[in-house]
Amino acid sequence: MDLTVTTAELAGAASALVKLVPGRLIDPVLSGLLLTASPDGVAVAANDRERAAQVSRSAVVHTEGRVLVPARPLADTLRALEQEQVRLVVEGSKLAIRAPGARYALPLLDADVHPGVGTAPAVAGSVAGAMFASALSTVVLAASRDDALPMFTGVRIRSEGDRLVLVSTDRYQMALASLPWSPAGSPVDALVPASLLGELARQLPSGPVTVHADRDRFGLGWAGALVTTAVLDGSFLHESKIHLSDVDTVVTLDADALAGAVRRVGLYADARRVLLVEIGDGEIRLRAADQQAGEAEESVKSTVEGGRTGQAYQSRFLTDALRCFAGREVRMEIQPGMRATVFSSVEEVEPSVRYVVMPMLPPR
Amino acid sequence: MDLTVTTAELAGAASALVKLVPGRLIDPVLSGLLLTASPDGVAVAANDRERAAQVSRSAVVHTEGRVLVPARPLADTLRALEQEQVRLVVEGSKLAIRAPGARYALPLLDADVHPGVGTAPAVAGSVAGAMFASALSTVVLAASRDDALPMFTGVRIRSEGDRLVLVSTDRYQMALASLPWSPAGSPVDALVPASLLGELARQLPSGPVTVHADRDRFGLGWAGALVTTAVLDGSFLHESKIHLSDVDTVVTLDADALAGAVRRVGLYADARRVLLVEIGDGEIRLRAADQQAGEAEESVKSTVEGGRTGQAYQSRFLTDALRCFAGREVRMEIQPGMRATVFSSVEEVEPSVRYVVMPMLPPR
Repeated sequence: MDLTVTTAELAGAASALVKLVPGRLIDPVLSGLLLTASPDGVAVAANDRERAAQVSRSAVVHTEGRVLVPARPLADTLRALEQEQVRLVVEGSKLAIRAPGARYALPLLDADVHPGVGTAPAVAGSVAGAMFASALSTVVLAASRDDALPMFTGVRIRSEGDRLVLVSTDRYQMALASLPWSPAGSPVDALVPASLLGELARQLPSGPVTVHADRDRFGLGWAGALVTTAVLDGSFLHESKIHLSDVDTVVTLDADALAGAVRRVGLYADARRVLLVEIGDGEIRLRAADQQAGEAEESVKSTVEGGRTGQAYQSRFLTDALRCFAGREVRMEIQPGMRATVFSSVEEVEPSVRYVVMPMLPPR
Repeated sequence: MDLTVTTAELAGAASALVKLVPGRLIDPVLSGLLLTASPDGVAVAANDRERAAQVSRSAVVHTEGRVLVPARPLADTLRALEQEQVRLVVEGSKLAIRAPGARYALPLLDADVHPGVGTAPAVAGSVAGAMFASALSTVVLAASRDDALPMFTGVRIRSEGDRLVLVSTDRYQMALASLPWSPAGSPVDALVPASLLGELARQLPSGPVTVHADRDRFGLGWAGALVTTAVLDGSFLHESKIHLSDVDTVVTLDADALAGAVRRVGLYADARRVLLVEIGDGEIRLRAADQQAGEAEESVKSTVEGGRTGQAYQSRFLTDALRCFAGREVRMEIQPGMRATVFSSVEEVEPSVRYVVMPMLPPR
C-alpha cells in the first residue's frame, strides 16, 4: 500500500472512528483501523464485533493494498501533524507515515483475523441529519449509564408511519422525541446503545441520513460513511405515548430562566439534591435548604393554569429536562402525588420532544 | 451588617480568595470568608493559618459589621447570579444574599475563633506585576508536586542587588528566572510554595506589586489586595548561577517547531517516555521507538555550533522547558555524559529565564 492524502481529512476520519468504535483492550486486532487503498481512494474501517464503522476519503493511490494498524496512535499522529499532505506507505512489517522531514512507523497487525468491514443491514428509511442529531442529543440524556441493567442504557428507536419515535428512560426520568421519517423498507424497532447514539449526535451531517436495521443490528449511513451496532435485548418500552391521567397544574415559563434558578438554588440542596417547586400567582418558587449549606428561595415568572400542586424534584433531572428546551418556552404538566411531571415545548417544533421527570418525596 | 455591592466585583473577589486559600476540611472556620463592612466598602479575607489573603471592594454600606461565612457556597452563589447588584444582610444567624425575586442564606460561622486578617510582613521591594507573573509561571513548571519532599515543592525567591532571582527544581529539571527589582527594605530570601505562586501568576495585575517578607512569611500586595503565606523550610538552592563546565554543542532553533516535534515523536516513546535528540548538519533529529507503538523520526532545522553531542530526555521535561520560550528562538547548551542541558532565550528578554533539564540514559 502506498498513498498520499490530505492530512486533515484522514485525521478527521481516524479520530471519528476511534470515538465511534472504542475497540477491545483484550484484543489489539479489534482496536485496529483497517485501511484499504483502491483506485477510488482510501477506506478506513473499524470493527470490534459489536460496533463497526467505515468512512471513505479521496486519496492519490500509488499502490493498492490493505493494512491493519493500531487506531489511536494513527489518529494521534495524523492530528498532530502540521503538514498539509501525508504519505502512507508499507515498509516491511510497518506502515510508515511520511511527511517532509519526518517519518513515523506503526506496526502492522494481522488483518486476516480482523472481522473486516462487515455488511450493512437493509435500508429501512431516511431522516434529516440535523433534526435526528437534535433528537438523539435529547433522548440520550434520560438513558442510564449503569451497565448493570443494559436495557436502560439503550434508546428505543421505532418507526410509526411517517414518524420516527425515540424513547429512553433510566426509571427516574424518561425522554420522548419524534421526527418526520421517510420509510423505505420494513418498519424499525430497535434498542440501540445510547453511548453510541450520543457520539453519532455529534458526528451526523445536516443532510440526509439513511437508517439501516435488521433483527440483530442497527445502522446509520451518510455520504461515504456507515456506522452499525449490535442492538440491545429488551422490549420494555412499548409506549411512545404518555398517558397523563390527572394533570391539575400547568405552568408555562422560560426554560432558561428556570434552568438558571435551578442551578443557583441547587447549590443549597440537601444530600439528596432535592429542590421544592411551589406554585404561586404568576410565578413559581424554587426552594432548597440544607443544615450546612444554608437555604435558598427564588421566584421565576410563569403562567399558571389549574391547581396549585407543587412537587419536589432532583435538581439534576430538572437541569437535563430543561436543557432540551433551551431558548424556548417550556410547559410543565404536574400531577399530584408520586406521579410524573411532563415537560414539553409550548411552540410546536421538530423534533417533537417530551421529557418526563418523576417527583421525589419533599425534603423534611 | 447590611450592604449593596456590584455582583461581579464581589464574585471575582470571593472566587480569587477560594483559589488562593484552599482552607482546611477539618475546620470549617478556617475555610470561611471574613466579610468586614466599613464606610470604606467591604473587605473580604481568608486565613487558614498557613495562607492568608484579603481584598477590598467598594460597596454601599447600610450597616457596618463583620461576619464569617462558608467560602465556597458564597463564591458559587455570587458567580451564578445574573442580577447586576446584590445585597448582603445579616438576618438572625444567617447572612442573606438578596437579589430581586431571590434570597439565599448562608449560616454564620464563629468569627471569634477565626485567626483574622493577619498582619503583613514588612515591605522588601517591588516588581512589575506582568513580568513577575511571567517569571512565576515559568519557574513553577520545574517545581515538584510531591508533598513527601516539601523543599522541592517551593520556589526560592531571592534579591540580588537590583535583580529578583527565582529558582526551582524537582531534582530532574531546574528553572531559573530573574527580573528587575526595586529594593525598599531588607534583602529577600524565601522558599515559597509553588502551588500558591502558580495561582498568583494567574491573578497578579500588570501594574506594580509589592513584595513583603520576614523570617517566617512571604507576601505580595497590590491595589487593595494582600496575599501572604508561611515559607517552607529549606536552603538547598543556594546557586542562582549555573556553571556549565563542558558545553561542547550549542543548538539554536525555533522553540515552537521543536515543541511540535516533541509532541508528535513523543507519541512513539517507550514506557520511560524518553526521546533521543541527535545532532546533524543544520538540523537536529528526534527519535523514539517502542515495540508496541512503533517508531518515529523527525528533523527540525537548527543552527549547530561545536560538537555533535546528542542526548536523551524525558519528553515531558522538554515540553515544559520549551513552553517557557514559546514564540522565540531557544538556545540549547548540551554537555556530554549525564550532565545537564541548559535552555535559554537567544534574544535578551525580561524576565531572563534559563531552564535546566537532566538527560536520561538513551533507550536501548
